[in-house]
Amino acid sequence: MCVTTQTITDAYQECQTRLIEAGLLIPSGVNGVYGLSGVFEDVVERFERLVTQRGSHLRAEVMRFPAILNRETYLKTTHIESFPDLMGSVHSFTGNERDHQRLLAQRDAGDDWTRELTPSEVMMTPAACYPLYPTAARTALPSDGRIVDLRSFVFRHEPSVDPARMQIFRQREYVRLGTPEQAQEHQEYWLQLGLEILEEVGLTARKVIANDPFFGRRGKMMAAAQKDQDLKFELVHAVATEERPTAIASSNYHLDYFGNAFEIQTPNGAPAHTACIGFGLERIALALFMKHGFDPDFWPTDVQNALAL
Amino acid sequence: MCVTTQTITDAYQECQTRLIEAGLLIPSGVNGVYGLSGVFEDVVERFERLVTQRGSHLRAEVMRFPAILNRETYLKTTHIESFPDLMGSVHSFTGNERDHQRLLAQRDAGDDWTRELTPSEVMMTPAACYPLYPTAARTALPSDGRIVDLRSFVFRHEPSVDPARMQIFRQREYVRLGTPEQAQEHQEYWLQLGLEILEEVGLTARKVIANDPFFGRRGKMMAAAQKDQDLKFELVHAVATEERPTAIASSNYHLDYFGNAFEIQTPNGAPAHTACIGFGLERIALALFMKHGFDPDFWPTDVQNALAL
Repeated sequence: MCVTTQTITDAYQECQTRLIEAGLLIPSGVNGVYGLSGVFEDVVERFERLVTQRGSHLRAEVMRFPAILNRETYLKTTHIESFPDLMGSVHSFTGNERDHQRLLAQRDAGDDWTRELTPSEVMMTPAACYPLYPTAARTALPSDGRIVDLRSFVFRHEPSVDPARMQIFRQREYVRLGTPEQAQEHQEYWLQLGLEILEEVGLTARKVIANDPFFGRRGKMMAAAQKDQDLKFELVHAVATEERPTAIASSNYHLDYFGNAFEIQTPNGAPAHTACIGFGLERIALALFMKHGFDPDFWPTDVQNALAL
Repeated sequence: MCVTTQTITDAYQECQTRLIEAGLLIPSGVNGVYGLSGVFEDVVERFERLVTQRGSHLRAEVMRFPAILNRETYLKTTHIESFPDLMGSVHSFTGNERDHQRLLAQRDAGDDWTRELTPSEVMMTPAACYPLYPTAARTALPSDGRIVDLRSFVFRHEPSVDPARMQIFRQREYVRLGTPEQAQEHQEYWLQLGLEILEEVGLTARKVIANDPFFGRRGKMMAAAQKDQDLKFELVHAVATEERPTAIASSNYHLDYFGNAFEIQTPNGAPAHTACIGFGLERIALALFMKHGFDPDFWPTDVQNALAL
């Protein structure tokens, strides 16, 4: 099913076109922003249930945070330093009727009417685990730490024809807060379990060391340091093309970064270490469609069984 | 379970506090922005499945749009005229490294660093049906019209201590595009079915004529006109207090407003009329918790059965 053409961009474009023609993605006129068909959504939900089953023995606390995040929480992290180009700041109109008339006049004149807006109390959620940390702030963890099951729509401003690079998408995460050992064990455990879950649905993913897309020249150094320390891994699989596989799940070990930023402590008073595994639900669905075909009724029986199709 | 105190604001505050203490809502520090517990989320998902079952005979097309909307689509509607105070405009950073240094300096100085941002290609989705219309633009409908099943997170900038007034929440909608008769029939049919579905889960809602919260003095006239024409109905039920029941579902008949704005036509070339029913999933879950108690294990057997609990 994968596309083979001259350039990577052509491959992305062709893949996007085919998914739209098949009715799985519904174009919005903005690259990276799509409606999903009922068939697509159903695959997302079924894969998520498989993850829930495979993780159920962990008895994780379940929390569901929205796609918007307290601006103060955002500013307690270094996202604005490291990934400013990916941020989404939500602005609204808070003026009176005269201000409103001015805003409309600016719109009518083709001027930037958004200058009349005020930054609201929220930012777009950059990653599913960000809203969790302030809820654990200034607390001491139990001796066996905490494990939390999260799912959130997250936003990344990176318009692209690559259908796998959506501007808003769902991350299903399991986050561990605890000692360095507990966090690292979580990362190792879930990378292995992640590979197995993906294998169950016919996706033979590969574990690779990775780095986050830090901004600018200083960012290049941070990315290199992250790689040197084995902090981030991705499970990659072909979506648009075999030549440039896509991260369909990833795991970050944050050391004590969030523990320090939000004053989360282990019982002995040390800053908590945290690690997360995140499944990119739309990307996994895309990988499934590109691997097994656009109609789940014709997918291999063992894949259908794993997804209870 | 409902709260009875001196003022409405006290009632909202007390209700919010109790839901937070019960662990059902997880505060974010911003009013109207909460995390949801696993129990809360499970009730939302189960109620939604009940709606799907009750609507399955309609064989609606299923589409799932995200919480962000093409800015051009937004500007084809009159939302900016009618509800500017509810909007969410998403801004991002698109500058170079020098611009980034300036942004960080402004943040450090406590200035408004968002002035360095650029309006992105998207707005927050104001209502679940907005992203649908451009996908039907410049098409003629089949003679029996179309019926579409939608669910979306939608955004409304209206911070409030009322736990039912969330800034981001899910609407589950059925939209009809067709002739005036088809649209009106859809509205009547779903208001009745909506009351029945809510009754199945033990919520005796009341159908009331309503209006949208149009902005300003001109808005007051528009609201009156909307009421005069019987265009909007709400199904209301107590959440925080019996004295001020909450709209937990609503239906709008838009006449040919969207048909005109997006050039959607009936087979005879007339602008399509549209109507929608929307279930406010978080509000319905809140009504259920306030009516039946905070633990679904102790809900009445018939309610548990209806929700397959």
